[in-house]
Amino acid sequence: MSFTIQNALIPVDSGYETADVQVVDNCISAIAPNNPPFNSPPYQGGNPASNSPAYQGGNPPSNPPPYQGGDRGGQTVINGKNKLLLPGFINAHTHSSEMWQRGIIPPLPLELWIAELYDFTPLDPEQVYLSALGTAVETLLSGGTSVVDHLVLIPGQELETIAAAVRAYQEIGIRAFIGPLIQDESLTAGMPAGDSGIEHAAYIRSTKATLELMETAIKQFHTPEKGVNMLLAPTGIQLCSDALFEGCIDLSDRYNLCRHAHLLETPAQKQLAYEKYGCSAVEHLQKIGYLSPRTSLAHCVWLDDSDIAIMAETGATVVHNPLSNLRLGSGIAPILKYRQAGVNVSFGCDGAASNDSQDLLEAIKIGSILHNITDLDYRQWITPRQSVEMASLGGAKGLNLADEMGSLTVGKKADFVLYDLTSLSLLPRTDPIGLLILGRPTNAVDSVWVNGKQIVAEGKVKTIDVDALRRELFDRSEWTSKRQSQTVSEIEAHYRKVMNLQGYS
Amino acid sequence: MSFTIQNALIPVDSGYETADVQVVDNCISAIAPNNPPFNSPPYQGGNPASNSPAYQGGNPPSNPPPYQGGDRGGQTVINGKNKLLLPGFINAHTHSSEMWQRGIIPPLPLELWIAELYDFTPLDPEQVYLSALGTAVETLLSGGTSVVDHLVLIPGQELETIAAAVRAYQEIGIRAFIGPLIQDESLTAGMPAGDSGIEHAAYIRSTKATLELMETAIKQFHTPEKGVNMLLAPTGIQLCSDALFEGCIDLSDRYNLCRHAHLLETPAQKQLAYEKYGCSAVEHLQKIGYLSPRTSLAHCVWLDDSDIAIMAETGATVVHNPLSNLRLGSGIAPILKYRQAGVNVSFGCDGAASNDSQDLLEAIKIGSILHNITDLDYRQWITPRQSVEMASLGGAKGLNLADEMGSLTVGKKADFVLYDLTSLSLLPRTDPIGLLILGRPTNAVDSVWVNGKQIVAEGKVKTIDVDALRRELFDRSEWTSKRQSQTVSEIEAHYRKVMNLQGYS
Repeated sequence: MSFTIQNALIPVDSGYETADVQVVDNCISAIAPNNPPFNSPPYQGGNPASNSPAYQGGNPPSNPPPYQGGDRGGQTVINGKNKLLLPGFINAHTHSSEMWQRGIIPPLPLELWIAELYDFTPLDPEQVYLSALGTAVETLLSGGTSVVDHLVLIPGQELETIAAAVRAYQEIGIRAFIGPLIQDESLTAGMPAGDSGIEHAAYIRSTKATLELMETAIKQFHTPEKGVNMLLAPTGIQLCSDALFEGCIDLSDRYNLCRHAHLLETPAQKQLAYEKYGCSAVEHLQKIGYLSPRTSLAHCVWLDDSDIAIMAETGATVVHNPLSNLRLGSGIAPILKYRQAGVNVSFGCDGAASNDSQDLLEAIKIGSILHNITDLDYRQWITPRQSVEMASLGGAKGLNLADEMGSLTVGKKADFVLYDLTSLSLLPRTDPIGLLILGRPTNAVDSVWVNGKQIVAEGKVKTIDVDALRRELFDRSEWTSKRQSQTVSEIEAHYRKVMNLQGYS
Repeated sequence: MSFTIQNALIPVDSGYETADVQVVDNCISAIAPNNPPFNSPPYQGGNPASNSPAYQGGNPPSNPPPYQGGDRGGQTVINGKNKLLLPGFINAHTHSSEMWQRGIIPPLPLELWIAELYDFTPLDPEQVYLSALGTAVETLLSGGTSVVDHLVLIPGQELETIAAAVRAYQEIGIRAFIGPLIQDESLTAGMPAGDSGIEHAAYIRSTKATLELMETAIKQFHTPEKGVNMLLAPTGIQLCSDALFEGCIDLSDRYNLCRHAHLLETPAQKQLAYEKYGCSAVEHLQKIGYLSPRTSLAHCVWLDDSDIAIMAETGATVVHNPLSNLRLGSGIAPILKYRQAGVNVSFGCDGAASNDSQDLLEAIKIGSILHNITDLDYRQWITPRQSVEMASLGGAKGLNLADEMGSLTVGKKADFVLYDLTSLSLLPRTDPIGLLILGRPTNAVDSVWVNGKQIVAEGKVKTIDVDALRRELFDRSEWTSKRQSQTVSEIEAHYRKVMNLQGYS
């Protein structure tokens, strides 16, 4: 597979320039800027490079790229004129099967929201397949080339669940990082007990059985060369024993896999950590050895300064999920503090039942501006270019793949996205990256390549039949405005009491 | 003009039902639910009404609407099957010509951001025409049928500026509320002085001349029957004298027009109000008589409890602009407190240079979930249905038009929107309004009617040539990554000092 994208706008230190980007096999083989550069200041009007007619076939471009291999004559050429080329973003935390419940869960905090989520979770692997496809489509059409799926497992059909997601991601061609969501404590253990002395039911599967299941899944599904990577991904301290975390560390070390988990998403979890460990969740995770440069942690809303220092010291990555943090009232993650402390930060959509979308550009926009209200000194605020780097290279770092992806760099994987700068939502022309990150791009993704393969062309996913997917999603669901979660009604009074909410019940 | 939308889903108290909605002339003349209702609980599966074939012409629908006029046979029928019909939303605060600077202004707080904005403001009425069209297109395609344009005037071409916006809104057919943005103090007066003793230059136009200009504009352009309404809209306390406010009150009373202004968007403005009046801005505006049931006020971030009580007492409306409040670091408006105090709240996109979009659904989503992090008691959080009411009826109330628009009610204006519930972004089927408000709807607006006239069909604006608009916006702009605002560099040191920002310069 070999092709060249010609005359695309790419960001460079001094602004933008037009360039020809060549791909051989699945990697970027050359990036050749055109002369004169597009936007070297002072800009004088007119624009010879970007107004020159696009390369139309037989004639070599004026700046021939270094690659001169045998298939030069028949090499595919993509017209990048009036388009912006950026590295693919990483949707660094989601739960694909939550798509079946988007739009339906009422305004509730995490601890009650999750009870309703679990009461109505999909139980058919075919549903998992369809929602993985849906998650991938929305991620691709909002600039993502990789997805981290913290995958909810169907009890009794755990391997079938993973197989369904793997099938979906391989069919559509998005790069997938699948972390089966595991726990070994039952749902009620996830709330602070206060002085209630609540007894928790045993979890449905033993810690040992869960770890064996993970090892089987790793052997069966971890195939990075085919775009499928397995992660070890215990839910988080709220529902997992140390034995489970330690088993995951062992598997991650033996198979050289990344680790993932939720971390301190809510005030209740912070309170729970002190009940459970007598210290902060971060201190405890450091103590048992879970934190590392290949550990990414979703949310990280309730860390204090000493926790942040530990994150920096261990090299762990924060995945910022601003939309679910607002929707569930979890809080504002201290992203500016993380950045100042040198902690790597990336962005995630989180599951579609707490967002309720998988539009990565929306998550990046809100995640880039949300904390402006927490720090008056605007010199600390994130610029659109920094957002792009967090969403691409930041995501890659969190997956221990910064050497292979996350930037437009010769030798890295060809995971990138071409945005149509003539979309109304990106006009009038100003700063392309500013428009993309701070605006609300609509139908702006023109083309997407993953591992050198074109997945999206002219704004349409090419690898699967999206209309058929829509029909399946439509036929397998029904409109409703009301449903009642039995579990929420059982645990709400306790939640209100332990969180000191007015009137309790 | 007379037509019927058949078998559309509409929200009712008990959930949703399918209905035929008939329009005669420019008003809703009948709403006839189909039997059996779509979703009367308990839902039993199957769905005779929504699965029955759509009305195809000659045969009368099973529930004939009351209207039996002469053109019955030739009456237009719209197929509403698998579509959700909602009242049009009101984009209750924007500045259309800011579209020329979206994506380009760096992360700055309002007081510096506005300096850069003014340094590069468009000076050609044709630009104002084009950006008004762009603002209208984005508003329409995100569920809006009305726009409140707090319109920046080109010095020396004030009436031409207004005429350009009026022309755009009439051509495209959106309902427009134009409040020329007026002030009588120069930009530096908008910052707290601290102990600096800064002298401010005189403003370019006298208070008297400005008020005369407004009266001319009202006489020339205020034509509600043609969809164009003028508002009195002084910028806000930060740049206006009492004489200007009082002149606006007088004009609004004499011509029966609504009033608009910015109010307490930033901490700096709160500080300035005490410097200027020795009391809060809200107390002062009440004292001079500016607050009323036909006054809407954009932002309202920094009101305290006694200010909120005054807002409730006077019947003024708050326009919530969550995205610009985040982008500029202004803060989180206490929307839950307003609602608890009985203050009417609506939503605005704000100008596209501080958002940087005009997607009303995005503003509604973020405005509906943002304050969840400020009040732990989720029972106060806004539900998606409440969001719809705020965006439609709340907007209408703020324009003193709740009797004429803002809900699907027989006798009200036919300003409504049909959403395609088979859009991937609204699937799988769950709660349609939950999906629309909490999701990220993409290409979900199928049709829009304003005053009974269809403006959007099959997701495309019919009344103007959007491709030609894109070409004009493209040709009149250029990509750039850097520009320097002279004014920002002049005033930044003072701003940092008076706001106590570390290191000052």
